[in-house]
Amino acid sequence: MINQYKLECWECGTQHDADMSKLQCESCSQPLIVRYLNTNNHKIIPATIDRYSMQMPFQKPDQKITLGEGLTPVIQLNKLAKDLCLQNIDAKLEYMNPTGSYKDRGVASMITMAKEFNISEVVEDSSGNAGASVSAYSAAANIKAHIFAPETAPTAKIRQIKVYGSTVHSIKGARDHTTAKAIEFQKQNHLVYLSHSLSPFFLEGTKSFAMEVALAYPQNLPEHIIFPVGNGGLYLGAWIGFSELKANGLIDKIPRLHAVQSSQVMPIASAFNNITWDTQNAGTTIAGGISVAYPSRGKQVIDALVKSNGKATTCNDNQISKMQRILAQDEGIFLEPTSASAFIGIKNLISDGTIKTQDTILVPVTGFGLKDKVSFI
Amino acid sequence: MINQYKLECWECGTQHDADMSKLQCESCSQPLIVRYLNTNNHKIIPATIDRYSMQMPFQKPDQKITLGEGLTPVIQLNKLAKDLCLQNIDAKLEYMNPTGSYKDRGVASMITMAKEFNISEVVEDSSGNAGASVSAYSAAANIKAHIFAPETAPTAKIRQIKVYGSTVHSIKGARDHTTAKAIEFQKQNHLVYLSHSLSPFFLEGTKSFAMEVALAYPQNLPEHIIFPVGNGGLYLGAWIGFSELKANGLIDKIPRLHAVQSSQVMPIASAFNNITWDTQNAGTTIAGGISVAYPSRGKQVIDALVKSNGKATTCNDNQISKMQRILAQDEGIFLEPTSASAFIGIKNLISDGTIKTQDTILVPVTGFGLKDKVSFI
Repeated sequence: MINQYKLECWECGTQHDADMSKLQCESCSQPLIVRYLNTNNHKIIPATIDRYSMQMPFQKPDQKITLGEGLTPVIQLNKLAKDLCLQNIDAKLEYMNPTGSYKDRGVASMITMAKEFNISEVVEDSSGNAGASVSAYSAAANIKAHIFAPETAPTAKIRQIKVYGSTVHSIKGARDHTTAKAIEFQKQNHLVYLSHSLSPFFLEGTKSFAMEVALAYPQNLPEHIIFPVGNGGLYLGAWIGFSELKANGLIDKIPRLHAVQSSQVMPIASAFNNITWDTQNAGTTIAGGISVAYPSRGKQVIDALVKSNGKATTCNDNQISKMQRILAQDEGIFLEPTSASAFIGIKNLISDGTIKTQDTILVPVTGFGLKDKVSFI
Repeated sequence: MINQYKLECWECGTQHDADMSKLQCESCSQPLIVRYLNTNNHKIIPATIDRYSMQMPFQKPDQKITLGEGLTPVIQLNKLAKDLCLQNIDAKLEYMNPTGSYKDRGVASMITMAKEFNISEVVEDSSGNAGASVSAYSAAANIKAHIFAPETAPTAKIRQIKVYGSTVHSIKGARDHTTAKAIEFQKQNHLVYLSHSLSPFFLEGTKSFAMEVALAYPQNLPEHIIFPVGNGGLYLGAWIGFSELKANGLIDKIPRLHAVQSSQVMPIASAFNNITWDTQNAGTTIAGGISVAYPSRGKQVIDALVKSNGKATTCNDNQISKMQRILAQDEGIFLEPTSASAFIGIKNLISDGTIKTQDTILVPVTGFGLKDKVSFI
């Protein structure tokens, strides 16, 4: 089934024709999302038959680029639940994606669209996981990729980007400088800037997370889902996905979608909670994936926090390091520091009364620990 | 459903009562397999409902230890197929298991059984992947694990073993020396020697691979499945699984199961093909997972090769390195050198006429490249 769609501004509602280079609204410069023109095309199909069974923008669905992304398992964390006096903490193991992070969901659809638009060379900037994912899917799609990464990105992530054959451009300075350099290079060379943090097609891929949660909990959805949030790629995909499912009567209620940031880099948590925080004073954190001082979809995350009745909370590196060890040595899950941050959010949300003992909590484990630093051994 | 079973000798058929320490036949010293006493308990259940839907030895199935293993995707390798003038080469991405290798299938059932036998401290020897897996599942099961690994094992694999909290014993000398040291330590300390290469419960877990292949190909099973073979943990699990499915009328025919070894370490390929090869002269290979000069289940692999009409073939490090690059840069799959070896087997089996143009070939990608050496970047 081929869907008709426009790229729509989340902020002002202006619609634009689809184009791989169209990343921001022509009227108000806000990032775009996909809006379908046909809306009676929804059903939940077991993902073993079609890993993308929600509405997708693909015009040639039989030619989609896949490396086996999605369909990640959900497991129960009994020891952590017991320690926190909760009945149910579940983890959805997003690190069990083809390149080791949830990014593959979004990149699979983004690269499929790039292929549909006959694009042969792209530019992307990433602190690591998105770069590895774009590199892998570009290889599968015969697309040449340039990945701009901060010089401080973990060695294993940079190595992984190179393995798939992309050209790595290592950039000194702050994370935002990497983005500036990527855009400069893209303009100079008349290439396409893919930008997983801006591309509406990336969110179309990550919305598959919501569908799988609906499949995994056929009776009652979890009350709470807690995400580490940097650019909000998984958070917003989940919000869009649950919204589609609800609009089509496939679920009754959207879970409360909570966001966790580092106390060193908290543009969204501070804005949402009306805390004074100066982006200029952003510090460093071992959680590289949430070290995003200027999230391009920050306003959208806050909008979804409000609409889903979510909370935004923070944690520090010491807590992250301790939680990384607990998950590995108590539960057998080796996750990266960014992913550990979400579990600290559980404690915070118990403390403030948001989470009750009998609630079911779901946490996505967004990235594999193999690719990042480990501070506790 | 709880199954009654005995541990049976593959060679002489002697049956033994189940016991976690029973690894070899009391009559003839050959490694054992699980033999069920009830045999009318077979059906293929979609793995989303129960990831172990074949007969399993668990007496408390609701308490099984799982980290979300299995249910790995199957993807088509179109470029490789085109290059080799074949219609279908598929890859089953076994590296997308919780610790990054197929070993998790076997270790999940082995550790579940250790837990059922109330074992609290175990010893294992491994060149890396099995050690990481045992370490992770032991953490989840509250079991203390000692992992003996060769000093030459890749750094990332050793780090991963440590992350989950096991004690690593780094051993100098040949791979077999590591095994000897593990057994010595186990005896001195009156612990249980788990041994993924000998444990019949390990093969019970890896047989889930066969069930998933049957589910992924509901019409026609692949004509050929090609495995990298060291100890034969996945190869023999697949053989046992397909045999069970066929015995119960759930499949008509078992695919031809082929084995690939390194030309430097080829105890099985040489014995099967009647080639003179002296184990004393075993060389080194970058494919650590198939660097097993004395495979404890070698006779069983040869038996299964004969019965499944399989072939045993070899490759060298230069070919492995080249194939590792091709899979990463043409197909977007980052696999470890051991896993690359199986794809070289395809070429060999085309050359000798075993594989025909229209045949469907399936190759398990056994381990994630993140954990091992990369020679091409």
